[in-house]
Amino acid sequence: MPSTNAKPSLQLNAQGQLRHFLNIDGLERSLLEEILDTADSFVSVGEQAVKKVPLLRGKTVANLFFEASTRTRTTFELAAKRLSADVLNININTSAASKGESLKDMLQNLEAMACDMFVVRHANSGAAHFIAKHVCPDIAIINAGDGSNAHPTQAMLDMLTIRREKGGFENRTFAIVGDILHSRVARSEIQALKTLGAAEVRIIGPKTLLPKAPDSLGADKVYYDMKEGLKDVDVVIMLRLQRERMQTALLPSEHEYFRLYGLTNEKLAYAKPDALVMHPGPINRGVEIASEIADGPQSVILKQVSYGISVRMAILSMTMSGQTRPVTAAAPINRAPQ
Amino acid sequence: MPSTNAKPSLQLNAQGQLRHFLNIDGLERSLLEEILDTADSFVSVGEQAVKKVPLLRGKTVANLFFEASTRTRTTFELAAKRLSADVLNININTSAASKGESLKDMLQNLEAMACDMFVVRHANSGAAHFIAKHVCPDIAIINAGDGSNAHPTQAMLDMLTIRREKGGFENRTFAIVGDILHSRVARSEIQALKTLGAAEVRIIGPKTLLPKAPDSLGADKVYYDMKEGLKDVDVVIMLRLQRERMQTALLPSEHEYFRLYGLTNEKLAYAKPDALVMHPGPINRGVEIASEIADGPQSVILKQVSYGISVRMAILSMTMSGQTRPVTAAAPINRAPQ
Amino acid sequence: MPSTNAKPSLQLNAQGQLRHFLNIDGLERSLLEEILDTADSFVSVGEQAVKKVPLLRGKTVANLFFEASTRTRTTFELAAKRLSADVLNININTSAASKGESLKDMLQNLEAMACDMFVVRHANSGAAHFIAKHVCPDIAIINAGDGSNAHPTQAMLDMLTIRREKGGFENRTFAIVGDILHSRVARSEIQALKTLGAAEVRIIGPKTLLPKAPDSLGADKVYYDMKEGLKDVDVVIMLRLQRERMQTALLPSEHEYFRLYGLTNEKLAYAKPDALVMHPGPINRGVEIASEIADGPQSVILKQVSYGISVRMAILSMTMSGQTRPVTAAAPINRAPQ
Repeated sequence: MPSTNAKPSLQLNAQGQLRHFLNIDGLERSLLEEILDTADSFVSVGEQAVKKVPLLRGKTVANLFFEASTRTRTTFELAAKRLSADVLNININTSAASKGESLKDMLQNLEAMACDMFVVRHANSGAAHFIAKHVCPDIAIINAGDGSNAHPTQAMLDMLTIRREKGGFENRTFAIVGDILHSRVARSEIQALKTLGAAEVRIIGPKTLLPKAPDSLGADKVYYDMKEGLKDVDVVIMLRLQRERMQTALLPSEHEYFRLYGLTNEKLAYAKPDALVMHPGPINRGVEIASEIADGPQSVILKQVSYGISVRMAILSMTMSGQTRPVTAAAPINRAPQ
Repeated sequence: MPSTNAKPSLQLNAQGQLRHFLNIDGLERSLLEEILDTADSFVSVGEQAVKKVPLLRGKTVANLFFEASTRTRTTFELAAKRLSADVLNININTSAASKGESLKDMLQNLEAMACDMFVVRHANSGAAHFIAKHVCPDIAIINAGDGSNAHPTQAMLDMLTIRREKGGFENRTFAIVGDILHSRVARSEIQALKTLGAAEVRIIGPKTLLPKAPDSLGADKVYYDMKEGLKDVDVVIMLRLQRERMQTALLPSEHEYFRLYGLTNEKLAYAKPDALVMHPGPINRGVEIASEIADGPQSVILKQVSYGISVRMAILSMTMSGQTRPVTAAAPINRAPQ
Repeated sequence: MPSTNAKPSLQLNAQGQLRHFLNIDGLERSLLEEILDTADSFVSVGEQAVKKVPLLRGKTVANLFFEASTRTRTTFELAAKRLSADVLNININTSAASKGESLKDMLQNLEAMACDMFVVRHANSGAAHFIAKHVCPDIAIINAGDGSNAHPTQAMLDMLTIRREKGGFENRTFAIVGDILHSRVARSEIQALKTLGAAEVRIIGPKTLLPKAPDSLGADKVYYDMKEGLKDVDVVIMLRLQRERMQTALLPSEHEYFRLYGLTNEKLAYAKPDALVMHPGPINRGVEIASEIADGPQSVILKQVSYGISVRMAILSMTMSGQTRPVTAAAPINRAPQ
């Protein structure tokens, strides 16, 4: 297990409860199901006239985005506010860096300001894990995407969408399509699907965008051809094509990519008639997915966004609860149980 | 009626209540008066020790400013917070555009995150109207200024100021001075004044800054000379001179503009002795208005700012209420009446 | 007394209570002790599960940072939110300046929006004082650092740290080390220490970074040599070296500065064995302080950060209270006592 994968003991407290959320790998099926059950209970909050619960009132959540992402940051901000937490958006470029402060010093300062949780996005694999282990172990750390390693809240919101739309994972076949090689989303999806009992997980893409040892990620089957790979699947998970990767991937053009791996009605016809179409967003219309499919009846792309709030509310409240539960009999004074 | 003017049916729900606020044009006098009455009731909130009411608790207001405006955004943010709503400030340049996401996709994503209201400012006329009609009809859309088309909340805060300071609109004469041609403020002001019963609305400016068919905007009289135009008026509404328009307007200089159309004591003397002086701000001292008038006893410029919060609280709470009232017998589950 | 130093009467209301917080100079010892007592009572708020008190609910605090400072702004934002206030972060560069609005107009607009407090950081000495005296006297103004003049909340959080760690100021010797000449922190520290009864305050630094008349700041002794200056002191307050000042200070290099004035174990050994090491942050490791000291047992640098929240909560609540208390028998309607 590489050092960028969190050991269960780092993510869990002594009672086996979540205290950081860094990685799907190594978490038990029962814990993933607890996350989905908790998220289910929050779906109704978004449907109420008053979309707010007081669970994290008086807590401070700091969004530490070392890599820009309006969408993910916004969903975490909304999730935290709907739990009544205070939110601090730290623009990393304009703070620490400009005065030459080290990252470690900046994080320990935020800890000293009595922040309770860090939501971390970073271009380097293992960044959130490093912070949880070495810098601020008493702060609940949520990984909002680290390099090409993991994006566990994205995986869990997709699992919630699948469970609510399909009823479950067993006896189901899943296809993940696109740039598997560089995708933190794909890594976390495969781990979550297999842990939750998916019958078969396929990865589909051009050889240049698949890992050299395709089974290294835990997928069951590898396809280079869309029509073969999509045959009779229950769920199609499209990945976003990072345009900046086009050149290194030796892809001739976006047009050519769409012809071969873009999801069209013609290709989707090979999947089961009621197959779900998913995408983590933002979508590149006409590059990895045709507009009529993105907006069509099988697409659950906007539902994924909605469930993303619920899943992040679940992760925030569960890790906060896992941090405040005393690890030993004598709880530290500023981490008292609620 | 051009497509950028909202038809009443788009702004109103089946019960005739406001559900979007896009344009003054086409709204009934009774509805404008209801907005002013509601705003009146919020003026006292700003005077209390606790300037907060729980009307929009648990609602999420997204400020979508495609055109920078600290002042208008700030007043909407304050208005939303004083109604206890959560506020999301979306920096458009750093979000959608950077990942090539379409505007429509970005807005539908915000809708999926259960945002309740969009406050929209855009350089293109008709942008807010387009969003309300074609993109997110179930979100309450507030037009915070679209191109040269409309700025209806600015018009209504001016109406509140006039009603509170002058008692009403009938038997009163109003002059709007400056760059009428490009001014969304002027368009909305004229519509609001005429709807509310103003006896006479004059527009004053150089020919290059007046529309070719001056009565096309609904004004009663057109003047190219300040002293003639200001004679015996009850209210003088100065417009901000957009300096970037100086060249296209063939104006020789700011100094020359001030000499001809800047409001000075000498020119103001032609108006009634108790005439109000108004300006939407930010003011260019010595360009369109002399400092001694901006700070003088007839100026209500800072009162306009104060009443702007009250009017925006009124618009936010009325449109929210108009959206949540069921349009049909079966209310959609996530738009339940409060 | 230069005009940049607030006279007590400007900072206090008729009852002698704090209504602005601009400067330490001229405040009585009893008032500084009241600030520390109030801050002490807020320390426990940061240790509770719900780190929030409703003291400033419905109040609006505007952070006006004309000079970037993520850390100070963040601590004020957290302090205000933990008092339940609404916080407005005004980015000065993108607002007033871009439309050519004068600073005075911008501030009066914020006042008209019913903001209650301004937290002001400005590169010019006397900026906060000027706003309190000439622009918005009815808004509580907190000086968050003005030029090289004063940084009174930094001084008070250091006083709270010293009082909590050392029990008091009398019979204690203090050393402030570094760029005394340009440091608003040093000025405010010396005033606070002397007012609170410190037995001896020393300043230490190269001649180029000390004022020409060293006693002009109120310090008791001046040293150019670290080992002499640190001898038997109880508290060492290191200042941050502004790297942009290196050239004007004729310092040969950071390395040379560290050799002469950087705090190392060897130099610290001259102080008392239980001497505290303090630094306002962010620290330059290896420039003004060795890493093993910053992270060592005598360092209270992170405690300063924690107490900074408590002190700012105290200042915000005390000045707000001092503003809302009626100055005359008839309180103005929008400044009613709570």
